[in-house]
Amino acid sequence: MDPTHAILFEPVKIGPVTAPNRFYQTPHATGLGWQRPQAGAALRGMKAEGGWGVVCTEYCSIHPTSDDSPHGFLTLWDDSDIPALALTADAIHAHGSLAGIELWHGGAHSSNRMTRVPGIAPDVQPAMFHLPTTARAMDSSDIKAFRGWQRDAALRAKQAGFDIIYVYAGHDYLPFQFLSGRSNTRGDAYGGSLENRARLLREMIEDTKEAVGDTCAVAVRLAVDELHGPRGITSAGEGREVIEMLAELPDLWDVNIAGALGNDSKSARFSAEGFQEPYVAFVKSLTTKPVVSVGRFTSPETMVAQIKRGVQDFIGAARPSIADPFLPLKIREGRADEIRECIGCNMCRAANNEAVHLRCTQNPTMAEEWRQGWHPERIAVLAQRQKVLVVGAGPAGLEAALSLGRRGAEVSLAEAGNTLGGRILRESTLPGLGTWVRVRDWRAHMIGKLPNVQVYPASEMTADDIADFGADHVVLATGSRWRRDGIGVAGMQALDLPKALTPDDIFAGAAVSGPVVIYDDDHYFMGGALADRLRAQGHDVTYVTPHATASSWTAMTDEQGFVQAKLLQAGVKIVVSHLLLGQDAGAVRLACAYTGREEERPCGTLIVATGRIPVDDLFAPLLAAGVAVSRVGDCLQPSSIADAIYAAHRFARGFGAATDAVLRREKPPLKGMI
Amino acid sequence: MDPTHAILFEPVKIGPVTAPNRFYQTPHATGLGWQRPQAGAALRGMKAEGGWGVVCTEYCSIHPTSDDSPHGFLTLWDDSDIPALALTADAIHAHGSLAGIELWHGGAHSSNRMTRVPGIAPDVQPAMFHLPTTARAMDSSDIKAFRGWQRDAALRAKQAGFDIIYVYAGHDYLPFQFLSGRSNTRGDAYGGSLENRARLLREMIEDTKEAVGDTCAVAVRLAVDELHGPRGITSAGEGREVIEMLAELPDLWDVNIAGALGNDSKSARFSAEGFQEPYVAFVKSLTTKPVVSVGRFTSPETMVAQIKRGVQDFIGAARPSIADPFLPLKIREGRADEIRECIGCNMCRAANNEAVHLRCTQNPTMAEEWRQGWHPERIAVLAQRQKVLVVGAGPAGLEAALSLGRRGAEVSLAEAGNTLGGRILRESTLPGLGTWVRVRDWRAHMIGKLPNVQVYPASEMTADDIADFGADHVVLATGSRWRRDGIGVAGMQALDLPKALTPDDIFAGAAVSGPVVIYDDDHYFMGGALADRLRAQGHDVTYVTPHATASSWTAMTDEQGFVQAKLLQAGVKIVVSHLLLGQDAGAVRLACAYTGREEERPCGTLIVATGRIPVDDLFAPLLAAGVAVSRVGDCLQPSSIADAIYAAHRFARGFGAATDAVLRREKPPLKGMI
Repeated sequence: MDPTHAILFEPVKIGPVTAPNRFYQTPHATGLGWQRPQAGAALRGMKAEGGWGVVCTEYCSIHPTSDDSPHGFLTLWDDSDIPALALTADAIHAHGSLAGIELWHGGAHSSNRMTRVPGIAPDVQPAMFHLPTTARAMDSSDIKAFRGWQRDAALRAKQAGFDIIYVYAGHDYLPFQFLSGRSNTRGDAYGGSLENRARLLREMIEDTKEAVGDTCAVAVRLAVDELHGPRGITSAGEGREVIEMLAELPDLWDVNIAGALGNDSKSARFSAEGFQEPYVAFVKSLTTKPVVSVGRFTSPETMVAQIKRGVQDFIGAARPSIADPFLPLKIREGRADEIRECIGCNMCRAANNEAVHLRCTQNPTMAEEWRQGWHPERIAVLAQRQKVLVVGAGPAGLEAALSLGRRGAEVSLAEAGNTLGGRILRESTLPGLGTWVRVRDWRAHMIGKLPNVQVYPASEMTADDIADFGADHVVLATGSRWRRDGIGVAGMQALDLPKALTPDDIFAGAAVSGPVVIYDDDHYFMGGALADRLRAQGHDVTYVTPHATASSWTAMTDEQGFVQAKLLQAGVKIVVSHLLLGQDAGAVRLACAYTGREEERPCGTLIVATGRIPVDDLFAPLLAAGVAVSRVGDCLQPSSIADAIYAAHRFARGFGAATDAVLRREKPPLKGMI
Repeated sequence: MDPTHAILFEPVKIGPVTAPNRFYQTPHATGLGWQRPQAGAALRGMKAEGGWGVVCTEYCSIHPTSDDSPHGFLTLWDDSDIPALALTADAIHAHGSLAGIELWHGGAHSSNRMTRVPGIAPDVQPAMFHLPTTARAMDSSDIKAFRGWQRDAALRAKQAGFDIIYVYAGHDYLPFQFLSGRSNTRGDAYGGSLENRARLLREMIEDTKEAVGDTCAVAVRLAVDELHGPRGITSAGEGREVIEMLAELPDLWDVNIAGALGNDSKSARFSAEGFQEPYVAFVKSLTTKPVVSVGRFTSPETMVAQIKRGVQDFIGAARPSIADPFLPLKIREGRADEIRECIGCNMCRAANNEAVHLRCTQNPTMAEEWRQGWHPERIAVLAQRQKVLVVGAGPAGLEAALSLGRRGAEVSLAEAGNTLGGRILRESTLPGLGTWVRVRDWRAHMIGKLPNVQVYPASEMTADDIADFGADHVVLATGSRWRRDGIGVAGMQALDLPKALTPDDIFAGAAVSGPVVIYDDDHYFMGGALADRLRAQGHDVTYVTPHATASSWTAMTDEQGFVQAKLLQAGVKIVVSHLLLGQDAGAVRLACAYTGREEERPCGTLIVATGRIPVDDLFAPLLAAGVAVSRVGDCLQPSSIADAIYAAHRFARGFGAATDAVLRREKPPLKGMI
C-alpha cells in the first residue's frame, strides 16, 4: 500500500460499533428489494468482500404507507421480513464489515400503488409521483403511530443483525418534508419554527437510540441543502441550524444535498468529483460525531485529502462502489491503478428510475453476483487455451479482449484506427462527457498487464485477412453508425434525406452552416449534446424532437432537467412534439406529433440523430468462409456503452461453454407463503 | 334467465375443445405475472367462477429475448415455469371453463431490461420502449430459433393444462412487426409481398398446430387494422387479405385493432361500446372458424345482437370482465340489472402502464382475490348487527353504504344534495365522461335492493345532528374540494390568487369571460376536460401546465395522445413546461419550468386545477364529541374515483375486525430456487 493512503484504513468508532476502515458504502438503490433477497444479499456481500468497511442497504420501508412499487425497495413491515434482511446483514458480516440499514418512509413521495393505503405528509399535498392522488396530512395520532413504526423497524433491524440503523431525512422523504418550510406549513408543534419542524427528526433519533442504541449506531442521513434557495433548507441557513441543534444526538451524520435524488447523484456531465463539498463541509465543524458524505470519489488522493482537510471522516460512496466493489482493497494492496473508476453516466440511476435491477457501465458484474455467479475480480480460466481475434477496440472489443485475456485466451485485438476507444473517443469529446473515456482507459490499462493479449492499432482487417489469421474464434466488435434515413423511435418511415448529416459526419468534421436543425428521435444524450456543442461554437441551433422534452430518456439518468435548462439558457430553440417530414432548400418540414399539422423551419444544416445500425459487413463473409465468428456490442445491437460492455463481458464469461448460462430468477412458491 | 339471452349460453366448438358458452375473457394484463403466480391464478379462477366460458392469461413470454420488465408478464422459458402456469389452468378448470394462454414475443417492443439480451425484430429498429437501445434484425437462423421457441412454449403450455394456445400477432408485437410493411422492409422470403410478410405467422400457426393441435385449440390474435392508414395494415386492405390467406388455418380468430394498445383498449372518453365493429366485422364472412373480438360490451342486448348479426361468435371481453367477473352468471340467472358495468376509465390500463397490479374503478376486489381473499360477490356478514350512519353519497359513501349493507349493518346514508353521486354528478358531465355515472348508478341500484339500507337525500347534517343520530359508527364520505392556492404536483409554493376560479366554481356555474387560462398542475383529466368543454362553448382557451404534455398522467390511461390532439384540433392554445406565478389585471405571469424565465399571457378568467383538499370539517367535532367516526375516500385522501371506491370497500370489509387485515405478499425463498 502507498503509505500516504494508510489514513483511509484507520478504524473509526461510530457510537457502540467500530468501522474497520473509512470506506463507507452509503445506501443506494439496487432495484432488487424485497422481491430479490438472495440477489440483494450477494450484491452487498460483494461490497464487503471488496473492502468497504461499512455497507448499507437500499431504502427499507418501515410501513405499508411507504410503498414505492414498482421500484425495488426493502421492507420491515413485520417480523416476517426479518429473515430476508438477516441474509444481507450476514453476507456483509462474513467479510468483517459493518452492516447499515436505511429505514425509510417516503411520505408524499410514496403513493402506495401496491398497498393501496393513503399516503401521508406534513400537509395535504398532491402526491409527488404516480398521480393522480394526494398525501393526507398527519395528525398527532398519525405522528405517534409513525414514531412507533420507526422504533419497531429499528428493533427488527437490530434483530436481523444490522450494526447501523438509519434515521433517513434526505431526498424529499417524510422527515425531510417535515423539516423543510416548503412542504411543512403546519400550525402545531411540528410546524412553524425550525425547532418545531425538526421536532419529528429529533424524536426519531431519540426513539431509535432508545430502542437499539445500546448495541447499534444510529445514523442520520440529512439533506443539508435542497437547492431551492432561501425558501428551503440551505447549508448556509437552516441546514446548518439543524446540525447545530442536533449535533451530538446521532452517532453519525450522513449528509448530502437533495431535495430530489437528481441533485445528490448528479451525473458527471453536470458535476465534478467532490461537487457536494461546498455544501457539506461545514458539518464537521459543528459535531464531534463522525461525518460521511459522497461526491463520486474515485481518486485515492482526493479521498486522503477529504480526511486530512477535515471534510469528512469516511469516504462515502454509492456510485464508485458500484463501478468498483473492490476499490478499497485495490488501494490497500497498492493497486490503485486498477480501480475501475465510475464515469458518472448515471446508468445506475436509470435502472432505479426504470424500476429494474441495477446496472453499471464500468462494472458489468453488478447485480449479477447471485443470478449468474459473477465476481467482479474473478473469472474462470478456460479449460483449453484458445487463440481469439477481436476486431475493433471500442467498448465491446476492449471488454471482450480483456475478459477473454483474463480467462487465459491468447487474444489479438485489432483496431482499424490509430487510437483505441471507438465511439468513446468521439462521445467523450462532447460537453461534459470527458469522464466517459475512463471506459477505454481502464480496459486499455488492464489489457496492458496481460502478456497473453496483443493489441494492434492501425490494423484494419478485411474478411480475408481475418480468415487467414487462423484464430480459433473471431469476435467482431466493429460498432455501429448513425442512420441517415430518419427512422427512429417515433418515426418509422424512411425519409429521403440526401443532404442530412449524422453525428458521425459531425465528428468527422463535416462543415456546418446556416441555421442548424438537430432532429433527435434517439432521445438519449447525442442530440442534446450536439446542440449544446454547436451552440457553444456560435451556431444558430434549433433542436427538434417528436418527444415532449429534449433528450427525453435522460430523465432516467436524472439529467433531463439539466439538459433542457442548459440548452434554453444557451439560446437553443427547442421544438418539441414534432416529427421530421423532409428537408427542402433552406428549410425542414415538420409535423405536429399530435395533429399532423405541418410547418416549415429555416434550415441550413440538418443533423439527424435518430438511431444506429450495426457495422457488421465482415460477419456474413466470415460465416460463409467457415470461420467461427461472433458479434458483440453495437455491431450486433447498437445500444448504450453499458450494454456493449455487458454483452462483451457476458460473451467472454460464456465463451467455450456448451450451453447458455441460465439466469436464475427468484420465484415465489406456488402454495402458501415464505 | 331472459330467454332472448339464451343464445349467449350456447356451447361453441373451437377446434378440438368446446367452450361451454360464448363468454370469452380475452387475454389482458394483470400486472401479476411470474412474480405473483398465486394471485394470478386466483384472479383467473374468479373469472371462471363468474361464468366466463373461456378465460385467458395475460401475455406469456416464450423466450428471454422478450422481457417486458418491470411490467408483470408470465414466462414459459423452460420446464421450470410449467407448474406456475398449471396453477392458473387448474384454477380455471375448477369451474368448467377453458383455459387459454397468450404466448408472446414482443420483438422491438421488448428491450429486455431484466434478461439483458439483445432484442430482435424484422429489421434493425430503435427499441419502442425503454430507450436507448436497438432491436437487431433477425436472420434466417434467428427465425428458425424463434419458431422453435413458440413450439416449445406451446408444448409446455399444453403440459400445464391449457386448452387454447395463442399465436399472438397483435399490438405491435413480433409477428405483427413482420406482418406490417411499416416495420418490415426485409428483402428475403419474410419481407416484401404480404404473402412473405405473413410467412412467419403462417409458420407459427402450422408449428403450433403440429405441436399441440391434437388436443389444444390454436387461436390467432391479430390486429386487422393498425390505424396508420394505407401504409400499414388496414381492415379494408392487408388486414382483410391476411384473413383471406389464413382463413381456415387456426381454430379461432381473436381480432382487434391495434397497433398500440391504446387503440384496442380505447377509453370511453374517446370511444363507444362496440367501437371496433366497423374494423373487425368482415372477419366472419371469410372464415368458418369461430371469431372473437372486443368492444367494452356490457349490455346483454348488444351482446345478443353481436351474435345474431354475425359480427362474432363469442362475446370477447377484457375490461368488462375486470369490472364484473360475474357478468355471465348474472345474465344467466336473470340478474342482468346487477352487472357492474365497466365505465371505460382505463384505470386497468394505468396499472399496467405503471407496472403495478391491476386495479378497477368499479370492482375494488380485482387482484385482491388471493392477497386479501376478497370475492366480488361475497362478503362476510357482521357478527353483530350495527347501526351505521354514512354521511355523503359520492363514490365512497355509496360504496361504504352498499358494502356495509351487504354485511348486514343497519345503514343510513345521508346526502346533503338532492341527488346521489357527489363528484360523479359533476365529472360525468365533462366531454366523454358520461359513462362514469355508472359508478353511482350501479351502487344506488344495488342499495335499493337492501332493506337494511336507508337513503336520505337533501339531508345535510351538522356534527350535532350526527352525534344525536345515535349510530354505533359514523362514516364520513364528504369528499373534497379543489384548492385555490395553486399548490400542485410541481408548484409547492402557495400563491395569492383571489380571483382564480376552481373546477368547483365552474361546475357551480361561475361566469367565464375574456381569454380563459386553465392552469393544470393536477395532470389527470380535469384540466384538459375543462379546456375541451370551454373551448366547445366558444371561449378563447389557453391551457398551461408545468409538465411537458397536456393531462400528462392520462398517458397511463392510454389517453394522453387523444387528449392533446383533440385540444389542439379544437384550437386550444397549449403552453407546456410553465409554472404559474400569479394573476394580474388582464394577465397571468408564468415561469419556464426549466429556466425560470418569466412571461405574461392575456387572461380574463383563470381556472386553477392543481389539487384537492379534503372536506372533513365534521371529523374533529365528532371525535371531540366521542362519536366513533371514520373517514373514507376523498375526505380522507383526495384521489381517483377508483381509490375512493377501493378505500370505502376496504373499510367495509375490515369493519368490526380487531386488527387490520394483512396484505399477503408472494415472497421468494431465502435459499435455493423454486
